[in-house]
Amino acid sequence: MGEIMERRKTSSVCIGNVQVGGTAPISVQSMTNTKTDNVEATVAQIKALHLAGCDIVRVAVPDMSAALAIKQIKARIDVPLIADIHFDYRLAIAAMESGVDALRINPGNIGNIEHVAMIVTEAKKHHIPIRIGVNAGSLEKGIQEKYGGHPSPAGMVESALQHIAILEKLEFYDIKISLKANDVPMTIKAYQLMSETVNYPLHLGITEAGTIKSGIIKSAVGIGALLAQGIGDTIRVSLTGDPVQEVRAANEILKSLGLKEYGPTLVSCPTCGRCNIDLAAIAEEVEKKLSTVRKPIKVAVMGCIVNGPGEAREADIGIAGGKGQGLVFRKGEIIQTVAEDQLLTALFAEIDKLIEEEQ
Amino acid sequence: MGEIMERRKTSSVCIGNVQVGGTAPISVQSMTNTKTDNVEATVAQIKALHLAGCDIVRVAVPDMSAALAIKQIKARIDVPLIADIHFDYRLAIAAMESGVDALRINPGNIGNIEHVAMIVTEAKKHHIPIRIGVNAGSLEKGIQEKYGGHPSPAGMVESALQHIAILEKLEFYDIKISLKANDVPMTIKAYQLMSETVNYPLHLGITEAGTIKSGIIKSAVGIGALLAQGIGDTIRVSLTGDPVQEVRAANEILKSLGLKEYGPTLVSCPTCGRCNIDLAAIAEEVEKKLSTVRKPIKVAVMGCIVNGPGEAREADIGIAGGKGQGLVFRKGEIIQTVAEDQLLTALFAEIDKLIEEEQ
Repeated sequence: MGEIMERRKTSSVCIGNVQVGGTAPISVQSMTNTKTDNVEATVAQIKALHLAGCDIVRVAVPDMSAALAIKQIKARIDVPLIADIHFDYRLAIAAMESGVDALRINPGNIGNIEHVAMIVTEAKKHHIPIRIGVNAGSLEKGIQEKYGGHPSPAGMVESALQHIAILEKLEFYDIKISLKANDVPMTIKAYQLMSETVNYPLHLGITEAGTIKSGIIKSAVGIGALLAQGIGDTIRVSLTGDPVQEVRAANEILKSLGLKEYGPTLVSCPTCGRCNIDLAAIAEEVEKKLSTVRKPIKVAVMGCIVNGPGEAREADIGIAGGKGQGLVFRKGEIIQTVAEDQLLTALFAEIDKLIEEEQ
Repeated sequence: MGEIMERRKTSSVCIGNVQVGGTAPISVQSMTNTKTDNVEATVAQIKALHLAGCDIVRVAVPDMSAALAIKQIKARIDVPLIADIHFDYRLAIAAMESGVDALRINPGNIGNIEHVAMIVTEAKKHHIPIRIGVNAGSLEKGIQEKYGGHPSPAGMVESALQHIAILEKLEFYDIKISLKANDVPMTIKAYQLMSETVNYPLHLGITEAGTIKSGIIKSAVGIGALLAQGIGDTIRVSLTGDPVQEVRAANEILKSLGLKEYGPTLVSCPTCGRCNIDLAAIAEEVEKKLSTVRKPIKVAVMGCIVNGPGEAREADIGIAGGKGQGLVFRKGEIIQTVAEDQLLTALFAEIDKLIEEEQ
């Protein structure tokens, strides 16, 4: 398909066995919302996220019992784990000793350069990368004042550069950066600016995007716009709700830009006055059927015989409805004409055939 | 908020009282999926679309009874109407005589230049613009062969330029262009190429995007990526399902890029191990409350007292949960500390106050 963006060249880091940046595929991240020290619940959620297509999982580490729980969690999962830590260097050290694969911590917020150095020493020893995560809402006061008293893209970048400088002074370069805001244009601008300034890999996200219903659109627009410009090496969709939905949305964003093969694609026309069948109902049935399919096949459900097979020529398999009867087509070629009430059965049979075919 | 894109300069057309292109706000379009000659059903759907925030509505005109129905439909609606016509010049003439505000027809498909001239004469008389709508799936065979036997961005642009040339030869310039594919990168590339080639206003869309669930992400990525590059003057989200959902999604896309004020914004954090309240449930309650609000207020629902008020400083009103009790804040300033079970009540009271305040 169309190559729209030349991906920006970045350095890379390894989070467990997942490379981020460089030429690595763009990875999907999410974060648990269980209490991290509830090992059972946390492991269960991590497994659900992994199964849904999450490449890297992050957990909050607000206290020592969370940091220590990482050891038990790590023993039971096989997806890389990141510890999200605010301020306290002891939690970072403990998380690393517990076997975490990466940290998210802002060195400028730790307060004491000796403590930062202790973290860096431990991180170097275990090859643990650090994400610097700047958030528009918690931008340093001094920086905000410098840029008009409000969060701004330039301010966010300056904040990140200050954190980076602290790590670079300690000769630590396994760095990944995020610059999140809940304002989409501000986020886009900040990442654009950052990508012109440093070549560390970038973790994209729109923060506090909202509920599943409204947050998905904000995230798709913001993350999608950046990826379409070749910016971004790993993504996280933030939604208030089940994080499995974040993973599904993130993968759909990557899939839509041809950046990941992720399950089947359903192409269905919006229907118009030319459509003589209940296409929405049929499309929903097909979507249900496809929800159990992992193979990246392309299935078309089209409303009219005139445009259907031609417009969906790229589909591996498809149907087009007419008056009383419909067509089944494969790669644009009509293979069957069937009565309308047989359309779904015929399509499902062809889908099953496709799935069974050698990859 | 952040200005990320300089909007591409285009000419403009007027569809009824809605200007498209130039400096006009980016408008939202949708299309009915009723039988157009079922006037009752079509008018009802058009009104629902208009109410949901649709600026321009299109109807399919597959036959003469649909073309003639436009007269009755126009008499009962006050949103501009476009007739979507394939091939038949008589339907175009009849739709214009019935009072339609614009046409979507590809002059190269009409077959006879005399017939195109008749359409153009009538369109000039009534100041009716024409959208040329190129669809990757129905690209001319000759053009496809020229570009490797497949639909391609360059092929789509060439097809559009051929249609444009026919109209320009007849000294008709009230033109709007769309270049839709169900492949997002191909669509983005085609519009980018087109916007470097001509300065007619562009109608953006991803065609056959799929059902409401999966199609929204594809549309948000494709349309959002283009808008973020300053490309696009009017948009249509195509979904298989109730077109009111298309309008809602289109408006959310524009809102997320700061291109339209459209109802309230809910900011809510994704929750993490630091969160001690059932934020998802609270956010859903707040979303329900806001669904009846038209004023563009920003409401925050944050999981923790530490980061909440600061990160959501931009919100007109917000709450942050803690252990047993929570905060209500206005523009980052804490105005109330209340028991957890009083949080929603306190927030709703403040929202009501905000709504009643003078704009």
